[in-house]
Amino acid sequence: MTRDERPSLAALAAPLTERLVAGAPALRLGIDRIGGAMVVDAGIRHPGGLEAGRRIAELCMGGLGRVTLGPAPGAPPSWPFGITVHSAQPVLACLGSQYAGWSLAHGEGKGAFFALGSGPGRALARQESLFDELGYRDAADHAVFVLEVDKPPPAELVARIAATCGIAPERLTLMLTPTHSLAGTVQVVARVLEVALHKVHALGFPLDRVVDGIGMAPLPPVGGGFMTAMGRTNDAILYGGTVQLHVTGPDDAAEDLASRLPSSASRDHGRPFAEIFAAVKGDFYAIDSLLFSPARVTVTALDSGRSFHGGALAPELVERSFTEVR
Amino acid sequence: MTRDERPSLAALAAPLTERLVAGAPALRLGIDRIGGAMVVDAGIRHPGGLEAGRRIAELCMGGLGRVTLGPAPGAPPSWPFGITVHSAQPVLACLGSQYAGWSLAHGEGKGAFFALGSGPGRALARQESLFDELGYRDAADHAVFVLEVDKPPPAELVARIAATCGIAPERLTLMLTPTHSLAGTVQVVARVLEVALHKVHALGFPLDRVVDGIGMAPLPPVGGGFMTAMGRTNDAILYGGTVQLHVTGPDDAAEDLASRLPSSASRDHGRPFAEIFAAVKGDFYAIDSLLFSPARVTVTALDSGRSFHGGALAPELVERSFTEVR
Amino acid sequence: MTRDERPSLAALAAPLTERLVAGAPALRLGIDRIGGAMVVDAGIRHPGGLEAGRRIAELCMGGLGRVTLGPAPGAPPSWPFGITVHSAQPVLACLGSQYAGWSLAHGEGKGAFFALGSGPGRALARQESLFDELGYRDAADHAVFVLEVDKPPPAELVARIAATCGIAPERLTLMLTPTHSLAGTVQVVARVLEVALHKVHALGFPLDRVVDGIGMAPLPPVGGGFMTAMGRTNDAILYGGTVQLHVTGPDDAAEDLASRLPSSASRDHGRPFAEIFAAVKGDFYAIDSLLFSPARVTVTALDSGRSFHGGALAPELVERSFTEVR
Repeated sequence: MTRDERPSLAALAAPLTERLVAGAPALRLGIDRIGGAMVVDAGIRHPGGLEAGRRIAELCMGGLGRVTLGPAPGAPPSWPFGITVHSAQPVLACLGSQYAGWSLAHGEGKGAFFALGSGPGRALARQESLFDELGYRDAADHAVFVLEVDKPPPAELVARIAATCGIAPERLTLMLTPTHSLAGTVQVVARVLEVALHKVHALGFPLDRVVDGIGMAPLPPVGGGFMTAMGRTNDAILYGGTVQLHVTGPDDAAEDLASRLPSSASRDHGRPFAEIFAAVKGDFYAIDSLLFSPARVTVTALDSGRSFHGGALAPELVERSFTEVR
Repeated sequence: MTRDERPSLAALAAPLTERLVAGAPALRLGIDRIGGAMVVDAGIRHPGGLEAGRRIAELCMGGLGRVTLGPAPGAPPSWPFGITVHSAQPVLACLGSQYAGWSLAHGEGKGAFFALGSGPGRALARQESLFDELGYRDAADHAVFVLEVDKPPPAELVARIAATCGIAPERLTLMLTPTHSLAGTVQVVARVLEVALHKVHALGFPLDRVVDGIGMAPLPPVGGGFMTAMGRTNDAILYGGTVQLHVTGPDDAAEDLASRLPSSASRDHGRPFAEIFAAVKGDFYAIDSLLFSPARVTVTALDSGRSFHGGALAPELVERSFTEVR
Repeated sequence: MTRDERPSLAALAAPLTERLVAGAPALRLGIDRIGGAMVVDAGIRHPGGLEAGRRIAELCMGGLGRVTLGPAPGAPPSWPFGITVHSAQPVLACLGSQYAGWSLAHGEGKGAFFALGSGPGRALARQESLFDELGYRDAADHAVFVLEVDKPPPAELVARIAATCGIAPERLTLMLTPTHSLAGTVQVVARVLEVALHKVHALGFPLDRVVDGIGMAPLPPVGGGFMTAMGRTNDAILYGGTVQLHVTGPDDAAEDLASRLPSSASRDHGRPFAEIFAAVKGDFYAIDSLLFSPARVTVTALDSGRSFHGGALAPELVERSFTEVR
């Protein structure tokens, strides 16, 4: 296989950003300026919606993924809608763009602001060692990020993001999607493929062997507090998510990946996420990082044509998660 | 929540109308002029098709909805295809545009013409008190309507429609979709969400609390006479339709809505629609108006994150409806 | 019904070709020139992907079809993803464009090149008697073909294709999709509707009575050798494919078509395709040509509204085919 020329995430994302902003009234998004940068409110003071989340998810993949809302056959009968996502560049789309990998913090104490930045702008900022591994560097005079937050970022942080990207603040766009909002829920569950890719990486499987990816997860009911929403969006993936990866390389590596990739390979598997989170008293880093992956995976070895299945859907846990509030 | 600026339905619909007209040969639509207005034949003398219906449905929602043809998991096994529709502006898309709310009549006796006008043009015509309730007024020099009819409207009526909208007849477009046509069937079943919204309104639930909506219904086989088609398109929704609404406000109001919204809450529920229609000897207004709603609904309260389910799919009634002819 | 003006396949396909070529880095396609013509490598030295296959499939239908990747409810549980395709011009889209009907050969012995040309360019080349039956002739100064091959065509053949189409080689585009590639798998399985149309024609049912078509098939795991891929892509259709056609004309003709159309009407039905192929020692023409059709069909007679079902899904055969390698 020839090493492909890598597309510019920023260039692919630009028309998607423009269309989102132009469609703000229809998508019920708020548009504001902070420190010169454009800030899109997709669920804080403006309601946003499922469609806004779908488009933000495609944007967050740098235009390298397709996200659809529709039926979700494997889900519990009461929750028939779901999200399908696929990408012909899963590594670049998911790890190079969609992954919430850039820690953004400002201030201390009560007024502190913290967010994990995701989206195509990360490849301009290049603040994560992951980009060396990916061997990817983007160049553009504009950038867009998605922040899963419920309040706008302070102007100082906005200025720092722009400066780190080497762009004028006026060319920076920030999409704000609270976890418990409609758009936030869709854009998190649309990470079902990204979560798989992140664990592929954590397990040490060579990223350049992952050629294509497709995933699906049920759409959780939206709302309630942060804890309810965080629980459900995670459970939609951990207990309701399905991913199929096509990989190159030997069968035994594909088989090994299929057995280790699903969430069931984690010691923390088996309880709703919010319950796990409560058990560790909110210490996120006390949770087994190997939990974060889809319920069911199929790894297909392109060289042999053999497929290896791992994990299983747990519709009763999805049902419980989508029903209970925290 | 901030009260959002409302988009112009006419402005959002314009490019969709242009694309439909430009694609007429591919979509097998006829294009004609009556009294200066453009009339699109989507199933009278020209065959049209499912895709034309899908696009007319999106147009009929004023560009504020997304309509997809694909699998329909909850449907009877013999009818695996269905329609998914969602909108981040369900009230404006469905009640402000898609609802067939404008009575259009011309002439008397045998040559009389009657239609219920739907589509974005209604918000220009503003002939329904509903627009005062919605507090919505559109302004544009062009308009588009969908008429579920099987013959072209008389020139006098066309002139009246244009005059009521305050536009030149040359800027008026009318889409004609007979009930028993391919396009007509799709555009009616794509009303699964609209029908829910209409009943939400009839039940007195505050419309501004409805934030987002998604729905799904099986695709009925097309053809036969008007009665067969009217029966099946209604049954697809009444016995095969699913809708999920996200609403603000207290849990008890959401719970109450979920219990009253599905078609099963009506005394006329339980028989194919054509049979009900025959039983009242074709007197449409003798049918319980609360029958017109999806089989199964989920109302999710955004504030609490709790969901309330009502009704149930009745696949055996869908099967019977799709199989019998009248 | 009025005989519709037929759209130009070449004109409809042109913007799809442009977008594919412009998106080559994102879609992981290689772009090359052979004898002046543009050659798009969608799986030989460049990996391509499922999305490239989806877009090539829409292109191959001359822009007259819509192809979607998503859930596939009827498939075996381990293979939840599938392909939906529909067209309001199934005869022109499938037989006039997508069908691989033009035999292209060059050279002899070991260096010989052979391909079956499909795509909108066929209606310019008009080397098949089928076009007289379709009564369709296209005119354009550019053409695009899809070739299911695993090596690039020789320059002499490229020159001959351009000359036959009456265009400059520089205006010719060839998409190369090996059977065992990601793009190749999607574009073959997206033929579920075309395969049905081809058999409709072979059974002598009048093509002008076929008004609309929609189909669905599971997505096979990709890879392995040619035999594995050919087996699975065929089995996805023969044992996992569903098609619904809407036709005009009398009920008995529709009923007869429904009984003869599914793959189960063939004497060779019941074993994985690769096994059948092996049993005839690779003599393709020894296989019953009536085998090539979807597992399950519904033919709906538009005039009466009656539907006729034929065949059945065979998930256990799909499972076996997708699991075994050859």
